[in-house]
Amino acid sequence: MFEIRTDLAVEEKESFPGRGGEVTGVSLREWRKADSAIKLTEVVILDQEGARAMGKAKGTYLTIEARCIAGGNEAYCREVSEELAEQLRRLTGEMRKKHLLPAAGPLHLLVTGLGNPSVTPDALGPETLNHLRVNRNLEEPPRTGQLPDQAVISGIVPGVMAQTGMETAEILKGVVEETGPDLVIAIDALAARSIRRLGTTVQLTDTGIHPGSGVGNHRHGLTRESLGVPVIAIGVPTVVGAAAIVHDTISALIQTLASAMETKEAGDFLESLDPDQQYQLIRELLEPEFGSLYVTPPDIDQTIQKLGVILAEAIHLAFCPQTSQNSPGIHI
Amino acid sequence: MFEIRTDLAVEEKESFPGRGGEVTGVSLREWRKADSAIKLTEVVILDQEGARAMGKAKGTYLTIEARCIAGGNEAYCREVSEELAEQLRRLTGEMRKKHLLPAAGPLHLLVTGLGNPSVTPDALGPETLNHLRVNRNLEEPPRTGQLPDQAVISGIVPGVMAQTGMETAEILKGVVEETGPDLVIAIDALAARSIRRLGTTVQLTDTGIHPGSGVGNHRHGLTRESLGVPVIAIGVPTVVGAAAIVHDTISALIQTLASAMETKEAGDFLESLDPDQQYQLIRELLEPEFGSLYVTPPDIDQTIQKLGVILAEAIHLAFCPQTSQNSPGIHI
Amino acid sequence: MFEIRTDLAVEEKESFPGRGGEVTGVSLREWRKADSAIKLTEVVILDQEGARAMGKAKGTYLTIEARCIAGGNEAYCREVSEELAEQLRRLTGEMRKKHLLPAAGPLHLLVTGLGNPSVTPDALGPETLNHLRVNRNLEEPPRTGQLPDQAVISGIVPGVMAQTGMETAEILKGVVEETGPDLVIAIDALAARSIRRLGTTVQLTDTGIHPGSGVGNHRHGLTRESLGVPVIAIGVPTVVGAAAIVHDTISALIQTLASAMETKEAGDFLESLDPDQQYQLIRELLEPEFGSLYVTPPDIDQTIQKLGVILAEAIHLAFCPQTSQNSPGIHI
Amino acid sequence: MFEIRTDLAVEEKESFPGRGGEVTGVSLREWRKADSAIKLTEVVILDQEGARAMGKAKGTYLTIEARCIAGGNEAYCREVSEELAEQLRRLTGEMRKKHLLPAAGPLHLLVTGLGNPSVTPDALGPETLNHLRVNRNLEEPPRTGQLPDQAVISGIVPGVMAQTGMETAEILKGVVEETGPDLVIAIDALAARSIRRLGTTVQLTDTGIHPGSGVGNHRHGLTRESLGVPVIAIGVPTVVGAAAIVHDTISALIQTLASAMETKEAGDFLESLDPDQQYQLIRELLEPEFGSLYVTPPDIDQTIQKLGVILAEAIHLAFCPQTSQNSPGIHI
Repeated sequence: MFEIRTDLAVEEKESFPGRGGEVTGVSLREWRKADSAIKLTEVVILDQEGARAMGKAKGTYLTIEARCIAGGNEAYCREVSEELAEQLRRLTGEMRKKHLLPAAGPLHLLVTGLGNPSVTPDALGPETLNHLRVNRNLEEPPRTGQLPDQAVISGIVPGVMAQTGMETAEILKGVVEETGPDLVIAIDALAARSIRRLGTTVQLTDTGIHPGSGVGNHRHGLTRESLGVPVIAIGVPTVVGAAAIVHDTISALIQTLASAMETKEAGDFLESLDPDQQYQLIRELLEPEFGSLYVTPPDIDQTIQKLGVILAEAIHLAFCPQTSQNSPGIHI
Repeated sequence: MFEIRTDLAVEEKESFPGRGGEVTGVSLREWRKADSAIKLTEVVILDQEGARAMGKAKGTYLTIEARCIAGGNEAYCREVSEELAEQLRRLTGEMRKKHLLPAAGPLHLLVTGLGNPSVTPDALGPETLNHLRVNRNLEEPPRTGQLPDQAVISGIVPGVMAQTGMETAEILKGVVEETGPDLVIAIDALAARSIRRLGTTVQLTDTGIHPGSGVGNHRHGLTRESLGVPVIAIGVPTVVGAAAIVHDTISALIQTLASAMETKEAGDFLESLDPDQQYQLIRELLEPEFGSLYVTPPDIDQTIQKLGVILAEAIHLAFCPQTSQNSPGIHI
Repeated sequence: MFEIRTDLAVEEKESFPGRGGEVTGVSLREWRKADSAIKLTEVVILDQEGARAMGKAKGTYLTIEARCIAGGNEAYCREVSEELAEQLRRLTGEMRKKHLLPAAGPLHLLVTGLGNPSVTPDALGPETLNHLRVNRNLEEPPRTGQLPDQAVISGIVPGVMAQTGMETAEILKGVVEETGPDLVIAIDALAARSIRRLGTTVQLTDTGIHPGSGVGNHRHGLTRESLGVPVIAIGVPTVVGAAAIVHDTISALIQTLASAMETKEAGDFLESLDPDQQYQLIRELLEPEFGSLYVTPPDIDQTIQKLGVILAEAIHLAFCPQTSQNSPGIHI
Repeated sequence: MFEIRTDLAVEEKESFPGRGGEVTGVSLREWRKADSAIKLTEVVILDQEGARAMGKAKGTYLTIEARCIAGGNEAYCREVSEELAEQLRRLTGEMRKKHLLPAAGPLHLLVTGLGNPSVTPDALGPETLNHLRVNRNLEEPPRTGQLPDQAVISGIVPGVMAQTGMETAEILKGVVEETGPDLVIAIDALAARSIRRLGTTVQLTDTGIHPGSGVGNHRHGLTRESLGVPVIAIGVPTVVGAAAIVHDTISALIQTLASAMETKEAGDFLESLDPDQQYQLIRELLEPEFGSLYVTPPDIDQTIQKLGVILAEAIHLAFCPQTSQNSPGIHI
């Protein structure tokens, strides 16, 4: 089946007629900080009606949009990390209020880097874990939680099913049961619809990871239901479906052609193509294997590396600020 | 400037009206071996008129097309290597006859792996050199050429200008002058127009590498003129311009729309769009940065690795068959 | 504390006076196959007295000694894999008889690659898992066990505590409880006493992994007690203590000096140094940091890569022979 | 032949009786900056007599000793880079005075990273080049030298002979002739005698690289004679001969034994062993293959990475200070 998939709630929302038109059961809020190039968007799917319309689970989807991150300097990357950290604190603050997390005291986080480390655009999670400084193993604080607001952090790269023979959910459920974290933070590479989103957009959500999402197309979900503790997912689009690239341009082309033609009749024909019929047309035009092809920019290696540093630093700043400047040292 | 670029002569040829229609100064020949899934195409640009029409240098461009190589097993990869080896021997045989190479006796080859080793889709050349077994440094044959038809092989990965500060042509010219090979074989990653070409097509040419070609967009050429010895280029497409993806589908769409519409007038309008006008339309529709974006499949890491083995083995089989089964050993 | 550590039972045994002299509670058997360069040694620690004397857990320690593996060709590596496979089958056969494993039917194995993937000599386990073909996730056999003697295989690289903040034993216990394997096979890099052992000796044991062993010095053990299922450990020495290098030579020197001197008195003095006094001397001579330094050969990168292929192939041959020749494909 | 090799002039000097005793034709100077943990030593080999005694070429050998660099934080690494930069400027200043370099104006440097990128302890040169920012290719300054004291920088990783089939000297001579630098700076991994030197000592010398030196044991030298321009070599020890480890301890042991024994006679025997006789003894004791074995610490991956950054930054600070803080960007 031909499908133009996106893992970004903000792109799903944009696909509704009128771009930002009202969708029942979905709220949208956009803002921008003073003196900052970073734009924030919050899509909240409020109920089952919204979830059906959007094809995504009920919950909050925060989007942070920045200029191309791979091209940014150190100060710019730091700004992105700080904004992410603020939003992570806000999200966990709300989860504390809803009794999804302990009302007070240091949290115990299990950070998991999803995806295949040897397929570059799928390696965002493992790369982030390369830069994460865990502390659950340390004897001194913050392990013992003497410092207020310093989280206990552990981390794992579970691999992908083709490498492990196990569902990621099985591995994580076992680890969660054995080590008892309050919260799982799952880092994953996403598929977007628009090339413009690659390496420029970060999505935070309190809904966890759902089946069929991510570059590696997870079969089972990682959610509060499957793991027993809440799951915050942090994702960055690193691939785009080739079909999506075509679709966006064709939609624009159809508009252009319709207005370029003189007779009403032809305009009518073209305007009469609704999105479904446009899909149908593209499906006929594309070769069969094309529809399922995903693409990524050639400089994805550098983008993944930079994003890994930014995401790890965001977690340090949000939950363990005093470790954010330490050097990682040698792990043996 | 918006441009739908291809480094493949066979794709350039296909872009002429009538797909395979006659182009003055260009000959085309296609064939297929019995019992083989490999298809061969030879485009010969015979004169300056052909060169102008094709936007490529005068010379022979051999294309070997195979099923997706990354998915093939060992026997299939071997078949591709053998076919490449046969064509390499044919090409050098013809160069011997034209006195571009010594008429007889063992050749001294300098194999160069172009591209940036740390940008995956540009790393085909360096990866091939990882698998190449050189022998110019060995005391025993084949270094001394006692064995008939055993080439003396040396190899170099020159890096890219942004890493070295030097033109690749400067580095190679210096090395050629100092070490005196008869022939340079340059391995490079290419840009194609069609996604279907990625990792499935190998192009051999006796024209060398020309400015503006390759994933890394070489500024200066590597040719007999610049290096002083003939240059055979071996290239495999690893990226496609995003604009090219769109263009191919739009061309098909326009056909479909034209025939779908009832009035003669609308059909006339659409059919009246020649390729240049189609480009013009796409240029208006695409966002500015989109036109220069190249994309690559997410599994490019594995494809590059497999292609590196296949190309190195093809060189062994063509020029130094007895070393093709030896294990590489440790280089220190 | 100064300590000359070895993870090899066969080296521990050799360190007893008379090299192979009787140790109460320990049995030793050596043999060699006809037409093979591979030597086998089996040390069995029979009871608590043997365990105390050897400083190792009760159980069977099989040692396979081969010529330097990094230098071997494909056929030689295959021979080592086959010998390992035979011994793995023998060990699991005995465990079936002792009711540690199901008496018949296909086994479900969880293979775990211990150690830090980014510290080369500690990366043997992760590298082996790179080459392992798991099948628990496949729909068709052997997943469902229709084929007799085809194991169900899953695999995991748990990382090291400094990267995860968790004990490896915690992670594996969780995964074992969630996925229910019959047996864990743990691959680990070891420390040896003699440089000659590096990359030439493989140790198989049914005792699992014990605290303080391995290059990364595991804090907790991986045993039937801690994981709930039996654990076979496969280890290859990749580092040697610098102190061990010195110790071996000094022991020989003392012999030489003693016999070189003319007076009985001096000879007496030197011969009177028992191993403990020799340790004492070395401890005084070595700088403090020296005692804890481990070293590895410069070509360890290649050795680890080759060993990874050999160990993975041994597991395929022992438990899932029909998959041993398939190509790994792309994991996404 | 058994040999206890060191590439460090300072270690060679220490091996003379009395550790720092006078050697004809060799001068030694040691100093330490106020408020700095860095120690500097300058060994100058003044004439042929000194060169014969030391087994090294006539010239200046500067040694910078720091605490274990792999364990240092960012500020400490910066301090080492700055000290190296100062000494590089001093060395080139003296070469300007001796008319080995242009008396004034910006220099054109070719930096070359020697060694095999895929053998970790030999990869110091290639790793340094990964962090070097070249500018010879840029249109704007400092390429054109408008800024006083801003060098034009190019760089190359020539590979090792087993990979290229060519002598490094051949490749570099060709590149030097084609691109015309004033000075070659060669980065190389060295062999030391003492484990304490690994990753703690940097040697700068104006004598270039000599045959037989370095981890990879260069066959031909890189000197003003072979390349036509002066060569500054920067080296850091990353391996130690296993025999050297043994030798140092045995020397100390012999002292201890001699004083521990009561009779004059035995003491006489032991003291009568001069260094040559000690070598002889060790040679007899060591197994044949042992003598040529080099070893490296298990955490060498991290050490090489950190040293690469430090050396690249030293070159930036010495010759192109305004580029030292820029981010490297993406090279394609």
